[in-house]
Amino acid sequence: MKVIADLSIVPLGVGVSLSRYVAAVEKVLRESGLNATLHANGTNVEGEWDDVCAALKRCHEVLHKMGAPRVSTNLRWSTRVDRDQTLDGKIAAVEKWLKQDESS
Amino acid sequence: MKVIADLSIVPLGVGVSLSRYVAAVEKVLRESGLNATLHANGTNVEGEWDDVCAALKRCHEVLHKMGAPRVSTNLRWSTRVDRDQTLDGKIAAVEKWLKQDESS
Amino acid sequence: MKVIADLSIVPLGVGVSLSRYVAAVEKVLRESGLNATLHANGTNVEGEWDDVCAALKRCHEVLHKMGAPRVSTNLRWSTRVDRDQTLDGKIAAVEKWLKQDESS
Amino acid sequence: MKVIADLSIVPLGVGVSLSRYVAAVEKVLRESGLNATLHANGTNVEGEWDDVCAALKRCHEVLHKMGAPRVSTNLRWSTRVDRDQTLDGKIAAVEKWLKQDESS
Repeated sequence: MKVIADLSIVPLGVGVSLSRYVAAVEKVLRESGLNATLHANGTNVEGEWDDVCAALKRCHEVLHKMGAPRVSTNLRWSTRVDRDQTLDGKIAAVEKWLKQDESS
Repeated sequence: MKVIADLSIVPLGVGVSLSRYVAAVEKVLRESGLNATLHANGTNVEGEWDDVCAALKRCHEVLHKMGAPRVSTNLRWSTRVDRDQTLDGKIAAVEKWLKQDESS
Repeated sequence: MKVIADLSIVPLGVGVSLSRYVAAVEKVLRESGLNATLHANGTNVEGEWDDVCAALKRCHEVLHKMGAPRVSTNLRWSTRVDRDQTLDGKIAAVEKWLKQDESS
Repeated sequence: MKVIADLSIVPLGVGVSLSRYVAAVEKVLRESGLNATLHANGTNVEGEWDDVCAALKRCHEVLHKMGAPRVSTNLRWSTRVDRDQTLDGKIAAVEKWLKQDESS
């Protein structure tokens, strides 16, 4: 089962500047071999369920090792069985509608 | 690593009445042996990381088997390594402050 | 337009013990006159759209006044126009299915 | 008070193909004058609190008018008072760390 996920991983108890921690998370996700795209409020990921779960676990472990006593993650996590779905395909489908609307 | 999670699991493409699906999810979570508490917008769960991940996967599988082509989940997912944390403990800590405030 | 919402409001940059801040949020929500129910990972609220928005804004303002440089909130926010919906009604609908399942 | 938000707005009860609805939301956000960036699992927005709230309300109204009986939104919603923050600035801060890491 494939997952399309959006991960917003926030370390607590390490002050107010979090970009160093977000970068560490980003590095874990890229090294995991998953298709991962950083955005301003999280990272979009697609991959097999178990692979995405394993990468998420590794992110929490890495942030704890970096000194964060708590890690609080907000996830959007979706599966689809009627047809294949990709990060790029989701954006393309929306943009098709927007273009159609502009040209009408 | 223990996880405190809040799962809001929504089947898409099955109409507007979702309580039957939420009940199926609830049943999976209870049968999983995890401490699970239903609330109006999700279910709070605590347990070992791998156990919570496995229960979440089973929820998606069950909803797909019930006919949902898409399942979209919103998760709050947190770990803490400085001390143990429980669902009941989190509520109790807040209520302690509220009572203190009332009596002052 | 009525809203059913689930608010998880997290102050950043104030250390690792957050219950004092969650209690302050809870107090704001109760004083707002909204139907509000605390759970282990957030607070469920129901009310008119503008009232819930105003209460959320007040929560952020109060946490900033308490010293939090950043406040990061995760919201589930839903509206329904086909029929009225309440926090209690949502739980009751799920529990009806669970009971039916047990007795079959 | 400025808000950085990430909106994932999902209509329920309109079947399984949602891109037309996501495009309608996108159009509302762009016409609102807010800085808005679509990604695969939502849209990042920055603006004044009341402006972002008003745009969100308009999105729900538009989706209901398009026929969705329910609209379920997941929001990440953050404010910061110690310094100004932008969508671009958040990504740039993370990428600076990633580049530093690569060159070390």
